[in-house]
Amino acid sequence: MPDLRKDPILGRWIIIATERAKRPSDFGTEPQEKSDEKLCPFCVGNEKKTPPEVMAYREPGTKPDTKGWWLRVVPNKFPALEVEGDLSRTGEGMYDKMNGIGAHEVIIENTDHNKTLPELERKNVEDVIWAYRDRTVDLKRDARFEYILIFKNQGKAAGASLTHSHSQLIALPIVPKRVKEEMVGAQNYYENKERCVFCDIIRQETKSVTRIITENEDFVVFAPYASRFPFETWIIPKKHDSAFEDIQKHEVIHLACCLKGILTRMNKVLNYAPYNYILHNSPLTTSHLPYYHWHIEVMPVLTRVAGFEWGTGFYINPTPPEEAAKFLREAGA
Amino acid sequence: MPDLRKDPILGRWIIIATERAKRPSDFGTEPQEKSDEKLCPFCVGNEKKTPPEVMAYREPGTKPDTKGWWLRVVPNKFPALEVEGDLSRTGEGMYDKMNGIGAHEVIIENTDHNKTLPELERKNVEDVIWAYRDRTVDLKRDARFEYILIFKNQGKAAGASLTHSHSQLIALPIVPKRVKEEMVGAQNYYENKERCVFCDIIRQETKSVTRIITENEDFVVFAPYASRFPFETWIIPKKHDSAFEDIQKHEVIHLACCLKGILTRMNKVLNYAPYNYILHNSPLTTSHLPYYHWHIEVMPVLTRVAGFEWGTGFYINPTPPEEAAKFLREAGA
Repeated sequence: MPDLRKDPILGRWIIIATERAKRPSDFGTEPQEKSDEKLCPFCVGNEKKTPPEVMAYREPGTKPDTKGWWLRVVPNKFPALEVEGDLSRTGEGMYDKMNGIGAHEVIIENTDHNKTLPELERKNVEDVIWAYRDRTVDLKRDARFEYILIFKNQGKAAGASLTHSHSQLIALPIVPKRVKEEMVGAQNYYENKERCVFCDIIRQETKSVTRIITENEDFVVFAPYASRFPFETWIIPKKHDSAFEDIQKHEVIHLACCLKGILTRMNKVLNYAPYNYILHNSPLTTSHLPYYHWHIEVMPVLTRVAGFEWGTGFYINPTPPEEAAKFLREAGA
Repeated sequence: MPDLRKDPILGRWIIIATERAKRPSDFGTEPQEKSDEKLCPFCVGNEKKTPPEVMAYREPGTKPDTKGWWLRVVPNKFPALEVEGDLSRTGEGMYDKMNGIGAHEVIIENTDHNKTLPELERKNVEDVIWAYRDRTVDLKRDARFEYILIFKNQGKAAGASLTHSHSQLIALPIVPKRVKEEMVGAQNYYENKERCVFCDIIRQETKSVTRIITENEDFVVFAPYASRFPFETWIIPKKHDSAFEDIQKHEVIHLACCLKGILTRMNKVLNYAPYNYILHNSPLTTSHLPYYHWHIEVMPVLTRVAGFEWGTGFYINPTPPEEAAKFLREAGA
């Protein structure tokens, strides 16, 4: 069972992932990305190589953990957290810890071993979004969980260990520090102005135009004013909503267009650079917050986080977001 | 002039480093570490390849920017911040920004192109620490600065672009978010317990022993309970002091032993893995805080920061600090 430990100064939790326990000699010899289709646990025919599926979109009449699926959700074989058991908090002298309860799932986005997300049909990207939504709704029923994080690591330098295109979901027994800060920041702005900070950002960005990359009926895609990383991009719904899982069908279609579009533009401009994206959503225990606005943050991996960033918590970005937006705008989707 | 921009939700500042402005095509073609001694701007005889020196430890009678030095401090040729000018804060619609005033210096630790810090004589490591101290005392006089960050990136994966061993110093017009959080966390603990949280950590660690790597009269070297990274290590003075620059001569000697020792142990155990270290000090405008305790955090670069860490702000560490401490303890220095 993994250990969750709390930093006594910063209140930051860390996970000691005992399932992955590493000796010094394990680090240099990092395994290559597994790219052989026959061995790939995410390929059709290899369903038994993963833990039993949690959910799948499959042909009616086909059985779980067999062929017939086009999107499949399975538990992570090397989970950072474990789903069985009850949450228990204990102390260790002056330190606080809890057991590593949580869900860690993998969303296998399609059957084709070699197709990345932006290369899929729009219909297929819509199903990836539906899977994010369906798993969120399902896990929300488990009272032990307070937050669900959905993210994607694309490429080895972005943390992916398997090439077959997939996203990840982690359900957590606490609201993480980074999310709390975002909620508190948004709430402070709202108390001061009585307007949602994200709605204000959308208004200012669509008016000033320089950082807009593209938009459609439901979403705006832009480079944020204080981008941490070169070519950082946000996708945000025009209609205020704090809960991603309340997304409407027409919004799923438009979000699929934006997600496929921006990743295609990035591939063109940045020559298939690795990236992470993160779905920023409100905690599970909240509903219909006037101050929070769900969105997706896409971060290409082009620079390294070094001593300065670790020491200050702020970032040196060599590419002004206005220039990044111009390159991505002109690339076309 | 670089731009400092503030994230309107999180209050996090970022630096748009216009001196380093990068187009998409610059990223793939990252230059190799420059390792040719003839071209190295940090080597003896190449003093004219750097901006004029700010300070040096050199033979009496030798002139600035000529031979005769054994430690040299120069402005960074590609600074993230610029030292000339006055601080001005402005708005851009709903956003806040300021100009990038600050000092960005490089501490060239020794004359030998190929020797890394732990390979230097102890005397030489002491001088590196004296240089950190002397520059802090000097820059403290400039009323524009609120915080000085001293750090070292060793190895390309840790962010170093030149091989010749060096540290960096950045003087900032604001107290960065990460430091503020540490100060607030320590202050809260003090208000609650009327004891310094770092002093309590030293007491608990030296009592429980499992995470201690080594200690001497003045310092304890240990793996912190909530280590973010495998083999993360802190060096902390036994005597409570919030200001690094007040360090005593006997402490400089003992700190040099610890720093040289722990980096040697890490090189043995982790096969010369890249690392960052950061000197955590109190802001320049404070003095003799009962709740803060300066220290050094050393972080080997063995794992990648991916979607989960970015999304939550907490870390998955595959190596329990108790095991890391055991390996480093047994390695010998």
